[in-house]
Amino acid sequence: MARLLVLYNQPADPAAFDLYYSETHIPLAKRIPGLRSYVVSSGGVGLIAGAQPSHLVAELEFDSMADLQAAMASAEGQAAAADLANFASGGVTILAFATKSA
Amino acid sequence: MARLLVLYNQPADPAAFDLYYSETHIPLAKRIPGLRSYVVSSGGVGLIAGAQPSHLVAELEFDSMADLQAAMASAEGQAAAADLANFASGGVTILAFATKSA
Repeated sequence: MARLLVLYNQPADPAAFDLYYSETHIPLAKRIPGLRSYVVSSGGVGLIAGAQPSHLVAELEFDSMADLQAAMASAEGQAAAADLANFASGGVTILAFATKSA
Repeated sequence: MARLLVLYNQPADPAAFDLYYSETHIPLAKRIPGLRSYVVSSGGVGLIAGAQPSHLVAELEFDSMADLQAAMASAEGQAAAADLANFASGGVTILAFATKSA
């Protein structure tokens, strides 16, 4: 499997961020081809160690890194990526990696 | 469900980090009570957006935030947390959050 991990920094207007995320961004991102699961943090993100808190964390899972890369290159993936500029006012970190069980 | 997300910054000696992580830290962390799944990045972590690359990402899943908090407070959780000082030379970000399907 492979995961796309999206860490949203604290936005300028958290309530507006949350509304836009749930009503506009999630429907866009759910159209991405090859998406196997899509989970988001619920009720806040606790910072246990480190200096970079997150407002929201999203994880999109694919069967493989090849599928993840194809998904990001698709029209639907590009649309979801372009949508970030509409609400991720605090900045965002996006990581992509294959996963294995520890 | 709830996730403990551990983002390791680039360590001073990546090969030494990887060896210690797989041979010492994983066995310690797998003893944490209530742990439902434990996945790690495999083959590197790509930075698609943002300024903070990660060397390795680990995700530990629990049934609930209450179970996650109890796990972190347990002797096994404290031992795994204390072990970070032995290998996470580049620093680490640890986030904890409940999850829901998007």
